[in-house]
Amino acid sequence: MHITALAGGVGGARFLRGLLGHLRRRPELSGARLSVIGNTGDDITLHGLRICPDLDTLLYTLGGGVHEAQGWGRAEETHAVAAELARLGAMPQWFTLGDKDVATHIYRSQLLAQGMPLSAVVERLAVRWGLPERGVTLLPMTDTPVETHVVVPGGDDEAAGAQERAIHFQEWWVRHQASLPARRFVVAGLDRAVPAPGVLEALRSADVVLLPPSNPVVSIGIILGVPGLRDALRGARAPVVGVSPLVAGRPVRGHADVCLSSIGVDVTSSAVAGLYSDFLDGWLVDEDDPMAATSTLRVVHRPLLLSSPPASADLAGAALDLALDLRAGRVTA
Amino acid sequence: MHITALAGGVGGARFLRGLLGHLRRRPELSGARLSVIGNTGDDITLHGLRICPDLDTLLYTLGGGVHEAQGWGRAEETHAVAAELARLGAMPQWFTLGDKDVATHIYRSQLLAQGMPLSAVVERLAVRWGLPERGVTLLPMTDTPVETHVVVPGGDDEAAGAQERAIHFQEWWVRHQASLPARRFVVAGLDRAVPAPGVLEALRSADVVLLPPSNPVVSIGIILGVPGLRDALRGARAPVVGVSPLVAGRPVRGHADVCLSSIGVDVTSSAVAGLYSDFLDGWLVDEDDPMAATSTLRVVHRPLLLSSPPASADLAGAALDLALDLRAGRVTA
Repeated sequence: MHITALAGGVGGARFLRGLLGHLRRRPELSGARLSVIGNTGDDITLHGLRICPDLDTLLYTLGGGVHEAQGWGRAEETHAVAAELARLGAMPQWFTLGDKDVATHIYRSQLLAQGMPLSAVVERLAVRWGLPERGVTLLPMTDTPVETHVVVPGGDDEAAGAQERAIHFQEWWVRHQASLPARRFVVAGLDRAVPAPGVLEALRSADVVLLPPSNPVVSIGIILGVPGLRDALRGARAPVVGVSPLVAGRPVRGHADVCLSSIGVDVTSSAVAGLYSDFLDGWLVDEDDPMAATSTLRVVHRPLLLSSPPASADLAGAALDLALDLRAGRVTA
Repeated sequence: MHITALAGGVGGARFLRGLLGHLRRRPELSGARLSVIGNTGDDITLHGLRICPDLDTLLYTLGGGVHEAQGWGRAEETHAVAAELARLGAMPQWFTLGDKDVATHIYRSQLLAQGMPLSAVVERLAVRWGLPERGVTLLPMTDTPVETHVVVPGGDDEAAGAQERAIHFQEWWVRHQASLPARRFVVAGLDRAVPAPGVLEALRSADVVLLPPSNPVVSIGIILGVPGLRDALRGARAPVVGVSPLVAGRPVRGHADVCLSSIGVDVTSSAVAGLYSDFLDGWLVDEDDPMAATSTLRVVHRPLLLSSPPASADLAGAALDLALDLRAGRVTA
């Protein structure tokens, strides 16, 4: 059994950790392999170090080293480097840099500077985190540097009213907590990005494809923008099952509502499913979600809880069951 | 009063901190300025970060943040980054990287990568350490990347006997504690190095030039190898007074004896003075040192102790007094 998932940061990582927990409960699925295609659009270079927030969150969460309450960063983290950088006046200071994090960034930056592709760097980091022995392969969506920028109002001549400026996604998300109106998202490098080695194969050879409740615009949406990736998903023999990121019209976590509004999409599970309509087969929505099935989309209502590992395992199990059910139907059809 | 000093790491830094302490005791010298020309030959790039051990030791010591017992590195240092780098398998692991140190290295590396010359980076770091308000200007000897390498026996075909290999000075000094026989020192980049802005001017305009008891081969010797620097020292109007790094034929600290033997120089204060004979006017040697004055060199016997700030202040004061005495003689002559 080969499961392939697309994933952003915290929500995706928690869902997938739940999936691993669920798989451990099901002996008949022992030996299942999980390929995770991670978003790199929120990667950023700060203080000369290349930082991959979503990939790191996936590594830390699936590897058992994440800061639980936060959902990102390392457990038992210290911040001596950041404190000294602040004392030195190094800018910016709005991005949290834990010391263990910094080591990861230094290690990755050096390997990248030596010419190693990001996917090979991630493979090394995954070994440190014990992902191979958990049956997990972590793949960046692309080795091509890609950066999501957010066009917001303002600029040097804000008073004139007509100005706008583009800031890095991380600045918008972390520094401004998505409070600046996002006029549009511009993903530098995405049009010439090439899927990382193994990405298309992971989609083509999958028995099941899962979309965790990651942000449909700035996580899943970015991954789907890598040329060739969406086509591979459309052509995949596996059923594709996703989990809505919305409960009662609000994101379970993060700022999916703001992101959806920014691109003119209704903040509903139905509208999010519409973004995936060309390949989505099954869709998990919250218990009270008004969305109903369509002729091409199976819809299942479940509590969309990622609040604890067991809750995440239940949710991931429901998604997997739906996918296996669709797959069985497809095979017998 | 403008004092200019050449300096390596721990010994030079302790001596110069002593000098600052001594100056505070002498109201008639209030307003004295100190220019320090620091060795950059032991600079090294590790984990993609540019590290300047001697300049950092000078910054930390003169700025009041050094680890006292060690003589280098930061007080109250932690090592979370290094521990995580080790967990990641990043090599090498023989160089101690404190977390506060790492912040300095990250900051410096980024500024250098942006095209800022090392001298400008050092100027910024010096501000963080309050050196300007202490009347201290810290100058790297050159902005040109220079690296001291040590040719040692061995290599891929060590058994054949004829092989030798060059290792970075830091690897020889820190990892091997200068225990590998040094056949010679090769200073990559030194022949095309240009004195950093302010270096020649600091020598030309000085009222007094001091040579702390830094290593005469791999610290002072490297600085003197920067093209134009030795000529400036020879032509300086100021008297040049040095402090022997040897007590009873052994270095007070470090491996000056090994370094001197490697270049075929006797391990005596007299032989070290011989290395500086074209510009040295005064020479402080230990109380029991057999060395006597010559027709061109005043020799003063003093306890060569840097064991505490007061002892360092006494020694620096003696060096300064000798220089002032020589200067008065020169002025009246």
